[in-house]
Amino acid sequence: MNIVMAQYKLTYFNAKGRGEPARYMFHLAGVDFEDFRIELQDWEEWKPKMQAINPMGKLPILEIDGEIRVFQSNAINRYLARIFGFWGSNAQEQAQIDVIYETLIELLTPLYPIYAEKDEEKKNEMLKKFKDENVEETLKNIDKLWESNNKCGDYLVGDKISLADIFFFTYVNDILTRFLPDFNLNGHPKLKALAERVAAKPQIEKWLKERPVTER
Amino acid sequence: MNIVMAQYKLTYFNAKGRGEPARYMFHLAGVDFEDFRIELQDWEEWKPKMQAINPMGKLPILEIDGEIRVFQSNAINRYLARIFGFWGSNAQEQAQIDVIYETLIELLTPLYPIYAEKDEEKKNEMLKKFKDENVEETLKNIDKLWESNNKCGDYLVGDKISLADIFFFTYVNDILTRFLPDFNLNGHPKLKALAERVAAKPQIEKWLKERPVTER
Repeated sequence: MNIVMAQYKLTYFNAKGRGEPARYMFHLAGVDFEDFRIELQDWEEWKPKMQAINPMGKLPILEIDGEIRVFQSNAINRYLARIFGFWGSNAQEQAQIDVIYETLIELLTPLYPIYAEKDEEKKNEMLKKFKDENVEETLKNIDKLWESNNKCGDYLVGDKISLADIFFFTYVNDILTRFLPDFNLNGHPKLKALAERVAAKPQIEKWLKERPVTER
Repeated sequence: MNIVMAQYKLTYFNAKGRGEPARYMFHLAGVDFEDFRIELQDWEEWKPKMQAINPMGKLPILEIDGEIRVFQSNAINRYLARIFGFWGSNAQEQAQIDVIYETLIELLTPLYPIYAEKDEEKKNEMLKKFKDENVEETLKNIDKLWESNNKCGDYLVGDKISLADIFFFTYVNDILTRFLPDFNLNGHPKLKALAERVAAKPQIEKWLKERPVTER
């Protein structure tokens, strides 16, 4: 039998950000992909070329066999989760994954005004409030959803790792630590154990050691 | 054969907002549902009861047979789209639907600071900029995505109505008109025809006439 594997190319900035959940999934699935990275300072130069591929002129872009193209990180994440089997085993599990995904996405909303704030002191106050209120509320809600999904089994939904766990891991490992350098899950032992369980997957462990060191 | 239909209950405010795409899908699919509406001024009273159902204490909530519960409007929309067949016929179409969905969702981001703005004059300036720049850019992008999906066929993805069309219709019929009372699609004839095509579906036409008149 001659198996022809699809050729995947993920184009994003040289950053974790909105590209990292896809990278985790490629590694977890053991599927080769081109991890094409553009330096932020070179973006203006690349933009016209990327606009020819993605009408919206934004990254990330996922190309499959140079033909099928998926844009928007949330669409890319869901697409890869579906084709690589990180998407639950029935409509109910898929809904549970979506609920957790959307609950994490909502956590970005209060960050927009913080980004925009020019006054350093005010910004720090806002970040503290973000951490003490929004982040805490979200973690508590993820805990409650997990309890109602499967009584806090090994993973957030069903009985195996899914996009819900991968996206949660991205938040606590890559996103929140960027804004809140001292962020940790010490106050949430079950969620801490979950993050450790994801990080201990051999493919993730390897990638965390090998991946380019980037600020964002 | 004895077919037992699932019992659906959608709980939301007495508003279109984040509940209306689900209502459109129920009507389009011809599936009965309880359209349970809470008046905004009664929310504090209802909140504890709703928190017992949804740990996040937010609406909308979708209940199926009083047991399965889906929260977060985007998760509810995707769930109903999957079970009612508004979800494309393969992984590629599903990705195309997601790309359009996420492109529309992004259009809400610039609305947050507009909501928060207290100065009426400044608010109006921001709304004008939102209309002239963000809305226009999104409509152009939807047009380009549509072209690349199926050369602007009858619907945005594949050859039948999907969540992409329903969510687009919600935006132009219910969301944008709330913020921009004079909003119309006259400058975008193909998208205008698409909105009219959705509105002309007999079940949608009927619902638009029958639905409660609400401000939001």
